[in-house]
Amino acid sequence: MSEWDSFPDIVRGDGFWLVDSRGNRYLDGVASMWCNVWGHSKREIITTINSQSKKIIHSSLFNLTNNQAETLAKKLVSISPGMNRVFYSDNGSTAMEIAFKIAIQHWQNIGQKNKTMFATLQNGYHGDTFGTMSVGFVPAFFGKFKKNLYKTIQIPFENSYKISNHKEYHSQTLERIENQLSKNHNIAAFVMESGAQIAGGVNIYRDNFQSDIGKICKKHGVLFILDEIATGFGRLGSLVEYTAQKSKPDIVSYGKMLTAGYLPMAATLVTKKIYDSFLGNYHAMKHLYHGHTFTGNTMACAVANQNLQLYQKTGLISKVNKTAKHLEKRLEEFWNINAVGDIRHKGMLAGIELVSNRTKKIPISFSKSTNKIVFDEAKKHKIYLRTLGNIVMLVPPLAISQKELDFLMDGTIKTIKNITK
Amino acid sequence: MSEWDSFPDIVRGDGFWLVDSRGNRYLDGVASMWCNVWGHSKREIITTINSQSKKIIHSSLFNLTNNQAETLAKKLVSISPGMNRVFYSDNGSTAMEIAFKIAIQHWQNIGQKNKTMFATLQNGYHGDTFGTMSVGFVPAFFGKFKKNLYKTIQIPFENSYKISNHKEYHSQTLERIENQLSKNHNIAAFVMESGAQIAGGVNIYRDNFQSDIGKICKKHGVLFILDEIATGFGRLGSLVEYTAQKSKPDIVSYGKMLTAGYLPMAATLVTKKIYDSFLGNYHAMKHLYHGHTFTGNTMACAVANQNLQLYQKTGLISKVNKTAKHLEKRLEEFWNINAVGDIRHKGMLAGIELVSNRTKKIPISFSKSTNKIVFDEAKKHKIYLRTLGNIVMLVPPLAISQKELDFLMDGTIKTIKNITK
Repeated sequence: MSEWDSFPDIVRGDGFWLVDSRGNRYLDGVASMWCNVWGHSKREIITTINSQSKKIIHSSLFNLTNNQAETLAKKLVSISPGMNRVFYSDNGSTAMEIAFKIAIQHWQNIGQKNKTMFATLQNGYHGDTFGTMSVGFVPAFFGKFKKNLYKTIQIPFENSYKISNHKEYHSQTLERIENQLSKNHNIAAFVMESGAQIAGGVNIYRDNFQSDIGKICKKHGVLFILDEIATGFGRLGSLVEYTAQKSKPDIVSYGKMLTAGYLPMAATLVTKKIYDSFLGNYHAMKHLYHGHTFTGNTMACAVANQNLQLYQKTGLISKVNKTAKHLEKRLEEFWNINAVGDIRHKGMLAGIELVSNRTKKIPISFSKSTNKIVFDEAKKHKIYLRTLGNIVMLVPPLAISQKELDFLMDGTIKTIKNITK
Repeated sequence: MSEWDSFPDIVRGDGFWLVDSRGNRYLDGVASMWCNVWGHSKREIITTINSQSKKIIHSSLFNLTNNQAETLAKKLVSISPGMNRVFYSDNGSTAMEIAFKIAIQHWQNIGQKNKTMFATLQNGYHGDTFGTMSVGFVPAFFGKFKKNLYKTIQIPFENSYKISNHKEYHSQTLERIENQLSKNHNIAAFVMESGAQIAGGVNIYRDNFQSDIGKICKKHGVLFILDEIATGFGRLGSLVEYTAQKSKPDIVSYGKMLTAGYLPMAATLVTKKIYDSFLGNYHAMKHLYHGHTFTGNTMACAVANQNLQLYQKTGLISKVNKTAKHLEKRLEEFWNINAVGDIRHKGMLAGIELVSNRTKKIPISFSKSTNKIVFDEAKKHKIYLRTLGNIVMLVPPLAISQKELDFLMDGTIKTIKNITK
């Protein structure tokens, strides 16, 4: 942390721009951590916040419900084929911890107490808590905590840049999964990000990969848990990514863009079959012991309801697909920069991998962190950028205009050129 | 869950009252899950929300800061003796997971890689995620997940009702802790709730107990982690409970009432010594890999800032201590009910233990869950009540008026009488 001596102090937003205390403006190329949808001052959402604040800001879901949480749950179920019930929490990590607990207890509730293991793809990421670090175990991030993590089955999985024959590799991965699931009878669930791995290095799945994994799970009686926290709600071009992937999860988690990126909230959805396994009289003890103080926070649910209405009203998803085509076109220009080794993208997400040697695919490295180098240079071009290791991430707010997207792309090109010249 | 066929659908708040869609009013005896401070429509906080919503609702702490998060961090440090830095997250579970990760990595960063174990008191509770279930392991809650939890050292610890000589028992507990800490050299930290265990059954510590544990930790080079999520910010009568307990934590967590119980947020504070051990150049990899999307959410921080100003402006803590005296006085009436086996209370918190046999101290039990029985009866008396097992919890909003507290106490007495007659 010694490298970070000062930070822009954001005091207000202006559409897709962040404004700091000195009046500097930065175009939000990070979508304020992959969550902002409409920019920072969407009138309709401000109106909702003001109106809801006069009714009630937080009422508990312990023994009670509230109208905003109910409405949202119904909407989430209606847009999520196969899903039947919703469990609210406050962030993506807890939404995934809840998914894992539901999976383990589901098997216990139907008498299969040995099914407590999780299988997953390497380089998956599901959060920073102990349960999510165990499943999405990125050694560079979480190696220090290994003694306190539970064992999982990690199927080798690398992105297309590291693998020469990507098609064959995907088939091999499916075989490896089938092999593990057929020989281990203690697997509660297979867990993966829906559509693409993001934090693990932007690894976009080939067609049918995800649906094939789902089928393998079904065949071997293993639950299929999908994490759409970063990939759903339009980021990869679909409102619900698992429908685009033609896959059928038993449990799925949403977050980030659910509240337009404004307030903390996440949700874990389950099928009727899973839900029903938790039904029983009190003394049967089939219920789940999990409940965060602010679960179903009325204000966050009201914002999510307004957000989903706006998705529909503005036809956001089809707009996203148009903008994504422009993004795709502009990404081609990056190949002119020698330090660009690979570009992987889908929808409104792109990872630009920087290398010191294109032929040998050697990741770029500086004396300071690449994130710090890129961030500092990007500031000069009035854009807010972050990297994941040597990968420059382009994750703009979904509703960004073409003009502002161009500003972001121009600034990113200049940033990469300047730091690598 | 089969016992729960319908739920009051809360649509608005009116001071300390919740109002459902049918117009029924319930006095909030639960403080909407132990977090509400001012009732449900505090004018100054609504004003803050409306004003902040026009500036910016969420800006990320990834590479940036924001004025509300900065201001709040300074305030939290200023009210927390010995603390130097603040890490934000979205709920109490994650605030504690962060505390545990900081403790483990602190030792790694200074070269003591074997210190990864946590010691704690039995019946402690720190949240519902895998890390917090491991430390606050309540078997009835979390037994189903045991295979996926890490090992901890659990010191036997029961409440005063179960133990005949409570003073001697506290001394024995200290000896047991000293014994464990002197023989195990792999303990990263000792973890406990500050002031009292709450979710584990309302177990209020004797004078010096907490400070003596802190001294034992210091003597044996073990970090001392305190959880003030439910007990701080006035619940037990002090703004910062560890100062009232004359104890010195290395890490402390706040939540619940931090935002007046309005928006999801929690915070983990550390000393300068802990913080400094994370400093280094990027390639030294001493930094903590943990960051939730909404960490330092601008709106939640703005609400917390206004909330803390109101604590000061209204002299809330001294008002709480007056109200708590009235609560204490009214609690004596409960002894007239045969089913009341014990009453344990401190500040604005009370647990009334219901028994079927006073002499034999047998916990009361119904065909349905006691929580459901109590909740349903309490509704008839226009109050919102919950139990923890056989313990009726009185956890009113801190700023409740004496008149409304009387309404709550009257309704609680009627509720207990009716369900046990």
